Amino acid sequence: MTNPITNIPIPAILEIKSGIIYNLQDIFDRHGFENILMLFDSFTMDQWEANIKDSLSTTKVDTVLMQPHAEVHDLIKQAFSIKMYDAIVAVGGGAVIDCGKYMAFSRQTPFISIPTSASNDGFASSNCSLMIEGKKTTVPAKVPYGIIADLDIIQNAPSPFILAGVGDLMSNITALYDWEFEDRQGVSRVNAFASMLSKKAVNSFVRTPMHDIQDPTFLKELVSSLTMGGVATIISGNSAPISGSEHLISHALDKYAEHPHMHGIQVGIATYIMANVQEHRADRMQKVFTRTGFFDHIKTLEVKKADFKMAIENSPEIKPHRYTYLHEKKYQRKALDFLDQDPILQEILR
Amino acid sequence: MTNPITNIPIPAILEIKSGIIYNLQDIFDRHGFENILMLFDSFTMDQWEANIKDSLSTTKVDTVLMQPHAEVHDLIKQAFSIKMYDAIVAVGGGAVIDCGKYMAFSRQTPFISIPTSASNDGFASSNCSLMIEGKKTTVPAKVPYGIIADLDIIQNAPSPFILAGVGDLMSNITALYDWEFEDRQGVSRVNAFASMLSKKAVNSFVRTPMHDIQDPTFLKELVSSLTMGGVATIISGNSAPISGSEHLISHALDKYAEHPHMHGIQVGIATYIMANVQEHRADRMQKVFTRTGFFDHIKTLEVKKADFKMAIENSPEIKPHRYTYLHEKKYQRKALDFLDQDPILQEILR
Amino acid sequence: MTNPITNIPIPAILEIKSGIIYNLQDIFDRHGFENILMLFDSFTMDQWEANIKDSLSTTKVDTVLMQPHAEVHDLIKQAFSIKMYDAIVAVGGGAVIDCGKYMAFSRQTPFISIPTSASNDGFASSNCSLMIEGKKTTVPAKVPYGIIADLDIIQNAPSPFILAGVGDLMSNITALYDWEFEDRQGVSRVNAFASMLSKKAVNSFVRTPMHDIQDPTFLKELVSSLTMGGVATIISGNSAPISGSEHLISHALDKYAEHPHMHGIQVGIATYIMANVQEHRADRMQKVFTRTGFFDHIKTLEVKKADFKMAIENSPEIKPHRYTYLHEKKYQRKALDFLDQDPILQEILR
Amino acid sequence: MTNPITNIPIPAILEIKSGIIYNLQDIFDRHGFENILMLFDSFTMDQWEANIKDSLSTTKVDTVLMQPHAEVHDLIKQAFSIKMYDAIVAVGGGAVIDCGKYMAFSRQTPFISIPTSASNDGFASSNCSLMIEGKKTTVPAKVPYGIIADLDIIQNAPSPFILAGVGDLMSNITALYDWEFEDRQGVSRVNAFASMLSKKAVNSFVRTPMHDIQDPTFLKELVSSLTMGGVATIISGNSAPISGSEHLISHALDKYAEHPHMHGIQVGIATYIMANVQEHRADRMQKVFTRTGFFDHIKTLEVKKADFKMAIENSPEIKPHRYTYLHEKKYQRKALDFLDQDPILQEILR
Repeated sequence: MTNPITNIPIPAILEIKSGIIYNLQDIFDRHGFENILMLFDSFTMDQWEANIKDSLSTTKVDTVLMQPHAEVHDLIKQAFSIKMYDAIVAVGGGAVIDCGKYMAFSRQTPFISIPTSASNDGFASSNCSLMIEGKKTTVPAKVPYGIIADLDIIQNAPSPFILAGVGDLMSNITALYDWEFEDRQGVSRVNAFASMLSKKAVNSFVRTPMHDIQDPTFLKELVSSLTMGGVATIISGNSAPISGSEHLISHALDKYAEHPHMHGIQVGIATYIMANVQEHRADRMQKVFTRTGFFDHIKTLEVKKADFKMAIENSPEIKPHRYTYLHEKKYQRKALDFLDQDPILQEILR
Repeated sequence: MTNPITNIPIPAILEIKSGIIYNLQDIFDRHGFENILMLFDSFTMDQWEANIKDSLSTTKVDTVLMQPHAEVHDLIKQAFSIKMYDAIVAVGGGAVIDCGKYMAFSRQTPFISIPTSASNDGFASSNCSLMIEGKKTTVPAKVPYGIIADLDIIQNAPSPFILAGVGDLMSNITALYDWEFEDRQGVSRVNAFASMLSKKAVNSFVRTPMHDIQDPTFLKELVSSLTMGGVATIISGNSAPISGSEHLISHALDKYAEHPHMHGIQVGIATYIMANVQEHRADRMQKVFTRTGFFDHIKTLEVKKADFKMAIENSPEIKPHRYTYLHEKKYQRKALDFLDQDPILQEILR
Repeated sequence: MTNPITNIPIPAILEIKSGIIYNLQDIFDRHGFENILMLFDSFTMDQWEANIKDSLSTTKVDTVLMQPHAEVHDLIKQAFSIKMYDAIVAVGGGAVIDCGKYMAFSRQTPFISIPTSASNDGFASSNCSLMIEGKKTTVPAKVPYGIIADLDIIQNAPSPFILAGVGDLMSNITALYDWEFEDRQGVSRVNAFASMLSKKAVNSFVRTPMHDIQDPTFLKELVSSLTMGGVATIISGNSAPISGSEHLISHALDKYAEHPHMHGIQVGIATYIMANVQEHRADRMQKVFTRTGFFDHIKTLEVKKADFKMAIENSPEIKPHRYTYLHEKKYQRKALDFLDQDPILQEILR
Repeated sequence: MTNPITNIPIPAILEIKSGIIYNLQDIFDRHGFENILMLFDSFTMDQWEANIKDSLSTTKVDTVLMQPHAEVHDLIKQAFSIKMYDAIVAVGGGAVIDCGKYMAFSRQTPFISIPTSASNDGFASSNCSLMIEGKKTTVPAKVPYGIIADLDIIQNAPSPFILAGVGDLMSNITALYDWEFEDRQGVSRVNAFASMLSKKAVNSFVRTPMHDIQDPTFLKELVSSLTMGGVATIISGNSAPISGSEHLISHALDKYAEHPHMHGIQVGIATYIMANVQEHRADRMQKVFTRTGFFDHIKTLEVKKADFKMAIENSPEIKPHRYTYLHEKKYQRKALDFLDQDPILQEILR
């Protein structure tokens, strides 16, 4: 038995603090990064490109403006048209981060996430969501070498982005319950360590004061908990620690709804539904979504009940090899009933 | 850059549940353990040896009764007098676990902790506390291959053991604050990932319902949070994520007090003191120690204020290379004043 | 210092023996592979598909016929159109192996090489040579999970394939000499461990009896030495341990010659030239190429001296960031002179 | 399948060259070693301590003179009486290297071997040979962080040390043959990768010119091949790739002979015997031992045939869980006959 202990890769850089975006030189120095490629979307390029470049004294930076809705095909073409960099850095939301993550994976170059919002856990995960032949696909890449979150920036992102992050994080609770259910059915096996990380991440968060979602303490808790959820998926080798029935509903909405909403928003509503179906920590869920203003925000969005109905009905086919609560007719029925009868949902959905 | 991502070793087995101690065969099968050495202390041998053996169908087990106050010298002698086993398992409290951990390290055999109480985080850490030439010494070993905690057993341990675990876990808060302080002084560097794990571990715990410390949910939270603290030390490569000024006080008590108390008990009191010195989360500390009955238990123990006074004064010399709050005269003074004036301490100490 | 020792990934399966191709079930069992995708080219499908399938009792196999000259774009499309397999296996020459390696990389699935000839070290390396937008590109992938070489098959491959393998392996000698030269110029740093593996691989080979290149002992030596060279590149994180000035000449031929020859054939001739330029082990080189029949084979191929002249002249631009002997005018001149004057080259080239 | 590829630890420093012992500062700088403990035996301290210290500009060095025949007990006591160093370095033969290796293991500090002779492969292995309660015991430790061999020094070691190294390296051949035999009996399983490294190491060596065993090229080959054998044992997790029946004979001599000889000397003679018993590469063995002067040297040593007889008879009990050729009566008989009848042995043994 030569290798009895499991080794897991973790990000070598993890910085979550105010103003860090203008102190990158220090970080680059410590890791020997002398040549960097930095990717932006049009908004983040406009906002931060010039100042970040000004703040760097020795590291050379080339910058690129990324287009939305990237095809894997084009990312690879782009990845091999550039020279060899010490690291590829992406500054922005989920889309530009996924592009950078995949380009870095293709070239086997270290990748650094600089998320400008906390709207989901993509900045810490090893997967990307990209287009292959026009179809949105979950594509494996690598765990980021570094995660750098500037709380000043995340704080100033529009509050719906923060609420989406809350929705995505809360889903750990229902996802873990689904995973244990699946394990009891013999369909998969819970990885205790991954499960523990995901659970601690959300438990630590749900007990944070929530009166001000722009408060740095709250945001640091949110970002670090999303990060820890991402690391949990690295350990388990699949997305089960942070993605269960509630994510199936969101994926079905992306596929079938005419106007899908932000990932974390859809996931949050679905999480509220599934917590009630599972009858597990549903009160806690309601408190968090009420206190953070998540429910109030939904009211402003024109989210359609009919879309959720269809999504619940189609959810099992999204991942036929899994076995969540929604893969049993009985619980699917229960979810549909709850959708029809819960007073909160009647108020916030259309 | 061939190896850009940091790899950390984590336990391959992590089981925290009721009745698991009689389901070891399953676990052994999954990991191919056919020959096991199992270590007990006199109490645990009496309680569980026969039943555990009965519950195993195929794995062969040899058992050994370990003596208290083990010298490293004797453990090595013993380790090399036995044949080669697939794993060494220790069933009991900190002492027998440390013996097993070191014997397994010496033979480079996988080690499995089966703690019978939650009184400290030793079952998950990579260090042991052993005697070298009659002197208690912190000795590096290896991260356990497995941690198996039976909640039925831990629940029935005397409540002081549970309270000691609470004390040891709460110290993460003051330890992390010391670590950041030390980092600002340039004496060490906080490992962000280790810090995050330790913080989530204790944050998840402090927000758990505490009306019944024998409740399985509470105990599972306690044990898993202690485990995660242990893993944090593996990542940082030192004990800083879970051991700061409050541990120095406890070590000084072990060294100088006539009658030292249980590790977690001493650490808990010291943590309460240091949280007030640091002026960081002291209210939370007070709530946890009140609600769990920690303070009430101290009243029954004859803990001497004079011992704490001496321990605070001698704490910096315990680890002269560190730089915690107690390494500054000003804060040492503040700790001594608090010891003299805090109403709670006047009530619970002698 | 938490991680003082360098960890390198090595293939978990390494089988080089006669008849192994019909004993795959055993290997698959040991590694838990129940569902396999197996890729063939038209020749290997015709030869072995039916018999391999017949030999497998429990593992389910889907097979695919791969087309030559694969574009990365198409491989990714294909990779994401298939279901999740436990492993992807490629049976054939360099082309189909590179396809399988990249598809497996894209899906992060274990990859197993089953080379049917020993014509180069691609079956053991972590890179592929694929088309991106019509341009041949070296694309990083992952080290194979397994390498399975059936000596019966390799023995029966046409002898030019074996000779090409000899050429590719002998280039370790000139490549290592270039690497040390480059290190002395301060352009790169020799990784001592990678260098040692590559050197032992070729040294072990050059001293093997060479009267019969179809002899299983000779072939096992050739295949295992090529494998060890591949592992050396994993350790160094670049191709330097097995690719220097002689590979630049071959790459230039691929780019500019009207009719390029097999990789290992071009590399072998270039290695003979460079050994004489470097004045290092040129005699040994001549003996190996004479005894194995490599030189005799070249005579039959219509290899053009003019192509080599042009390739030597263009070689530095192929990898401008490197600094081999050919990056110095003086040695480039020496190579051209040798090309013009060496009696052997006058005899074997046109 | 999260971790499909096997990771092996390899030395981070590997330097085999002339004069390197006075260029340690460079190496220490690159690895951040500012405080070093350096162990010597009385000979090496006398020879090199002062000059090494003079050659170091910034790294601080404490030096210790180690006593022969170290008890594990005393090494641990010593290890915990010293402060924390960045690395522990041992300069000398097998004895002082084993002491340093174990002290470094106990403190979990990086260890660097500086062998002053090439008499065995201990400088590269992860085991030590130490005394436990007066009994010589093989004790697991850790793979060295670094191996630094100065060819000027090794060249000037008395030639018997070099010949012992030749004996220890040649044993790879018989050890590997035993391992395959054992595998066929179903007693163990050959690790193909470890086997390949060990085989290439010795194959590369046997084909080196041997007219001058003090020649730097010869010595570099010898030292690097011994190193590669050591790495092979790390991969296999046991000593099988470099230790078979021939080592059992040497261990039995250490245990029972009145005057044991140097490890590599005993192993070399036993290797010659076993190659003839196995009827595998016995001619090659004879050539190497003749050309290097190994046989001539034996004649000067008063090695007793009777001791070898007894050692062969007692060899199986040394490692009863293994199954080498000597574990079968038939081959044991053959070994005894060969001992009695081989003309060379009659000439060189007494």
